[in-house]
Amino acid sequence: MTALQSWVPVPADSDFPVQNLPYGVFTPARAHSPRVGVAIGEHVLDLSAIWAGTPLGADLATGSLNRFLRRGPVEWAYVRERVTALLTTEDERALVEANLHRIDEVRLHLPVEVADYVDFYASEEHATNLGEMFRPGGEALLPNWKHLPVGYHGRSGTVVVSGTEIRRPGGQRKGPQDPAPVFGASVKLDIEAEVGFVVGAGSAMGEPVAVDDFARHVFGAVLLNDWSARDIQAWEYVPLGPFLGKSFATSISAWVVPLAALEAARVATPVQQPEPLPYLVEKEPWGLDLAIEVRLNDAVVSRPPFAGMYWSPAQMMAHTTVNGASLRTGDLYGSGTCSGPAADQRGSLIELTWNGRDPLTLPDGSTRTFLEDGDSVTLRASAPGADGVRIGFGEVTGTVRG
Amino acid sequence: MTALQSWVPVPADSDFPVQNLPYGVFTPARAHSPRVGVAIGEHVLDLSAIWAGTPLGADLATGSLNRFLRRGPVEWAYVRERVTALLTTEDERALVEANLHRIDEVRLHLPVEVADYVDFYASEEHATNLGEMFRPGGEALLPNWKHLPVGYHGRSGTVVVSGTEIRRPGGQRKGPQDPAPVFGASVKLDIEAEVGFVVGAGSAMGEPVAVDDFARHVFGAVLLNDWSARDIQAWEYVPLGPFLGKSFATSISAWVVPLAALEAARVATPVQQPEPLPYLVEKEPWGLDLAIEVRLNDAVVSRPPFAGMYWSPAQMMAHTTVNGASLRTGDLYGSGTCSGPAADQRGSLIELTWNGRDPLTLPDGSTRTFLEDGDSVTLRASAPGADGVRIGFGEVTGTVRG
Repeated sequence: MTALQSWVPVPADSDFPVQNLPYGVFTPARAHSPRVGVAIGEHVLDLSAIWAGTPLGADLATGSLNRFLRRGPVEWAYVRERVTALLTTEDERALVEANLHRIDEVRLHLPVEVADYVDFYASEEHATNLGEMFRPGGEALLPNWKHLPVGYHGRSGTVVVSGTEIRRPGGQRKGPQDPAPVFGASVKLDIEAEVGFVVGAGSAMGEPVAVDDFARHVFGAVLLNDWSARDIQAWEYVPLGPFLGKSFATSISAWVVPLAALEAARVATPVQQPEPLPYLVEKEPWGLDLAIEVRLNDAVVSRPPFAGMYWSPAQMMAHTTVNGASLRTGDLYGSGTCSGPAADQRGSLIELTWNGRDPLTLPDGSTRTFLEDGDSVTLRASAPGADGVRIGFGEVTGTVRG
Repeated sequence: MTALQSWVPVPADSDFPVQNLPYGVFTPARAHSPRVGVAIGEHVLDLSAIWAGTPLGADLATGSLNRFLRRGPVEWAYVRERVTALLTTEDERALVEANLHRIDEVRLHLPVEVADYVDFYASEEHATNLGEMFRPGGEALLPNWKHLPVGYHGRSGTVVVSGTEIRRPGGQRKGPQDPAPVFGASVKLDIEAEVGFVVGAGSAMGEPVAVDDFARHVFGAVLLNDWSARDIQAWEYVPLGPFLGKSFATSISAWVVPLAALEAARVATPVQQPEPLPYLVEKEPWGLDLAIEVRLNDAVVSRPPFAGMYWSPAQMMAHTTVNGASLRTGDLYGSGTCSGPAADQRGSLIELTWNGRDPLTLPDGSTRTFLEDGDSVTLRASAPGADGVRIGFGEVTGTVRG
């Protein structure tokens, strides 16, 4: 089989072969207004220029993907097909070349104006690890966990694009031995390696969305780092769940990989036993074989396998709407921390260091339990793509400021 | 003291004397586009027409208050002062008369495009009642409750305006005796009588907002009914808090009462012991003396006193941002169910009927534990206003559909 190739040069190790075509929002050097683009190799193609003078072009000449996403799956497919043709045939090479910008010369923005943000908890290994740490002596996995994808709403106003500096949050904490809570900067600042899903086409209030309608509503996926202050979280989270321990910042990658690029990555979820209720049973699997990599100050500290997530993103969507809650363009939901069964597959520092008991040693000889000021965390991910190529997600990175 | 009066007729029992001037969004009969207005007696004044041809007028000729709110507190005060003058002097009576519409002839819309929605849990009586029911034998009030206003994020996409029909949600429930969860329409559909607060002026990420800056950021208050499916909630809520038990619908009143109209309603919160951490200590009190009334099918079933809420809305705002989370125009936060110490002051059916044990008897002889299809719930509230007048909130109402 010959892989489809673009005439735009794509380095062999690129995250962005023509089989990927992830969407982002960027401002070119020497321009003032953001617009929608698609990444190809080391370049971004300005889609607003390709469709200039049309209603679609107007929807692409904006600071978020939302207006494009609202157009729905038929139009998503049309644009992807057209961009693929532009990049693989040379029929309009001059037009394309005039609107290619080097990615390293543009400014990338938050790709989506986030409507509601929900975070799930879909890794059995992660939920078990946290249960053991937060409720020692109790049942690690709570009784509801295998019946529904546990989730909660987070703060959409503090979702930021990769590269945004993360200020260490202040707040209340109280250890079991402290007589009263104390106030101060978090001393247990952590990460959570997740994949986020972006809703493109909304749904009507009162009408649950069927699990098999996933790709008619969800447009694509991003990398997501759900920064977490474990000390703040541990003190506040009963009985209504995490609040300030999470709401200070959530970082996502600048590129939204469309589901259409992830067809070859689809896998069955692990066996779900007991069998879920019918509204959660998918006919076609939407587990995804993504290999995630977590770097702390350039050292790989974990390689969580997304294929092992117990609940699929389609099941998360179906669950979110089963009570009649509507979806809106721009809704974002995170998978929850992705952790595998092995010690070096855990997607958070609290698991990697077992709540600080087993510090990590970095290549420079320093050790970490939780994040220190100046630390940078970067998530990357790869998936099998069409034609045997590798689909990459770019990265989501952030540096902690004290 | 002579009360300030409008030349626009205001019935003696009106919620909307000239000392109130709440903001809403409406479409007049025979018009097609929504615009911002202020209620006076039985009328609404079209503010977009008053400021026609100006940038402010353009910000008022839209389908939400957000563009007006974004202008900030100096402009809020200017508009209020100018509207007060228009309605109390007759200098521009012809202009005003040409732009008054009878409220019962216009269509009222959701007043705010909701950014993030947070729900608190600030009534000690409510938290104690629910603790006793959900965690029998345990501590009713959890250890963190008197140290911070417990809250969590809810779904902003399903906040709807008063009058919107509420469809009974489906979902999973599992009683302690059930071997496995079952799926079906909620059989414990409930209300929560709350007051909501609307953020007008945002804040920068990373910068906590001081408790005493409340009125520089929060614009006003609404009535809020946080519809709740207790059976869904009880099964899902550990460990990450309520999700589908709440996210199907939240109703708010059509009129946003500005804080400027509530100066005479300000009272101290109950004594807070232990003393809160310094970031939660307010110099000037922002407790509010609102008398809430809950009607079920036109029968008053409860009269919760908002003055007894343990945490003030200013403390809720300070807590929300103390970790550096930003505020955005359109953020909405609910106080949590308002319940007083007396049995007929409880703000939810689960408390009024003690989780179904003590059914309510309605005037028609029927009884209720939770809501039945066709039931209507209406919240109203009154506060002392300037000049000894009564400030009303209009109402938030909703009817359950099966």
